[in-house]
Amino acid sequence: MRTHRQERSGAARNSDSSRRRTGEPIERLYGRNAVLESLIAGRRRFVRLLVAESATAGQRLADIESLATSHGAPIERVTRSVLDTLVKGHSQGVALEAYSYPYVSDYDLHALAQARSVVLALDGLVDPQNVGSLLRTAEATGVSLVVIPTDRAAQVTPAVVNASSGAVEHLNIATVTNLARWLGRARDSGYWVVGMAGDESADPLFDTRMTPPIVLVVGSEGGGMRRLVREQCDLLVSLPMMGRVTSLNASVAGSIGLYEIRRDTDDSLNE
Amino acid sequence: MRTHRQERSGAARNSDSSRRRTGEPIERLYGRNAVLESLIAGRRRFVRLLVAESATAGQRLADIESLATSHGAPIERVTRSVLDTLVKGHSQGVALEAYSYPYVSDYDLHALAQARSVVLALDGLVDPQNVGSLLRTAEATGVSLVVIPTDRAAQVTPAVVNASSGAVEHLNIATVTNLARWLGRARDSGYWVVGMAGDESADPLFDTRMTPPIVLVVGSEGGGMRRLVREQCDLLVSLPMMGRVTSLNASVAGSIGLYEIRRDTDDSLNE
Repeated sequence: MRTHRQERSGAARNSDSSRRRTGEPIERLYGRNAVLESLIAGRRRFVRLLVAESATAGQRLADIESLATSHGAPIERVTRSVLDTLVKGHSQGVALEAYSYPYVSDYDLHALAQARSVVLALDGLVDPQNVGSLLRTAEATGVSLVVIPTDRAAQVTPAVVNASSGAVEHLNIATVTNLARWLGRARDSGYWVVGMAGDESADPLFDTRMTPPIVLVVGSEGGGMRRLVREQCDLLVSLPMMGRVTSLNASVAGSIGLYEIRRDTDDSLNE
Repeated sequence: MRTHRQERSGAARNSDSSRRRTGEPIERLYGRNAVLESLIAGRRRFVRLLVAESATAGQRLADIESLATSHGAPIERVTRSVLDTLVKGHSQGVALEAYSYPYVSDYDLHALAQARSVVLALDGLVDPQNVGSLLRTAEATGVSLVVIPTDRAAQVTPAVVNASSGAVEHLNIATVTNLARWLGRARDSGYWVVGMAGDESADPLFDTRMTPPIVLVVGSEGGGMRRLVREQCDLLVSLPMMGRVTSLNASVAGSIGLYEIRRDTDDSLNE
């Protein structure tokens, strides 16, 4: 896993070349965890750190300021009301101006499959809170690559970074124009593609042995997976539902799926 | 389980007597699932259904209108802009004016423990999205009672109902002024109290056999459980974290805990 992580960081650096950096839009990350993790990951180019004059001092803020300085980003004190104007969400007294999220593009699907990795594919999730909280679980469970469609889906905005508690800054995330076709390529590369579905016809998640190399597909909050994406799945799994309501929050369902893969993987290693 | 559910509905009806209804504040539920499930559960008193003139017709809207009528709530057509003024969140064209959430108060902890039930206790969660999505999982996994502190915690507002996709309307939720003391009473009644903690010192969740009667305690987004609440736990459990970020979203962590209890329960029944 560690070796694999190092490969990932290398890939991220390559795609983040100075050529691509020029002209990329600047955005404002906010929230102490989000800002701190972005600085620790160090994969973006940082422009400026804004700190509210009234911000409560503490170890995390000290770490943020010292890392910003070591990345060459100047620190500016602003009033809380200026910060609130610049940032839509709950800033916790800090905002970090940075170039946009460094998506990865140069990954080798065959090599990733041979490394028995876990990939998470999001099909049309739009709520930044859901995307962020699911990506936080992805980082916690050692997901090697996340795939997000370019259209009709939440991209990695500052709201997503915040909702992930900064975890996305440590993930490799790629965007794809056609997810169904991409899943076909993943299967050709040796991946097993499993979709989280709400239907009765799907296999029970907890009775299914899910081991890598695997792509877990999570559908949107409203309509689930699109038809063409579903058709690319080798298997559909669902969680037992014992109540009146027929589906779970998408980030909850996806997170349970990711931990199940982790668990089945550990079990197979112990056999 | 079914018998138990019937008991629950009975308890809810008792606490929702006409005496208590008078003078309770009216709130506006919004979102098609939230409104539909509230009408199906039928545990509140409904005042009026507002439907946007531009609302897309469909089966769910037809069901909502027919149930509102059968509950004696008049239907009023309003413009979309009027509805948007009345409702803060994404209404999906409907808003239901109803008396506030019918918390339960007359439950028998001893009887619930003897029925080997699962209770979920929230310690200071404040984000309506998190509370709603966790309660949605609680309903899906057959939780018998949810306990929420009166102070410094999200109550069951329309935003929570919406985030739960209406699931809270089918749950029994009680508020308590002192959660630590309440947990002590639950232990005296025969419950095993397990807290979800982020610490390394906690037991690994997946290696712990968690069977009812059990109270699962989930701490707040920022600080986790308060000290006095922690001290009432018979056991602390935590999820394996393999990445950089040290905790999960509270609703995700709590949901994984609830499914783990469900799974361990099924396993013990099969032995």
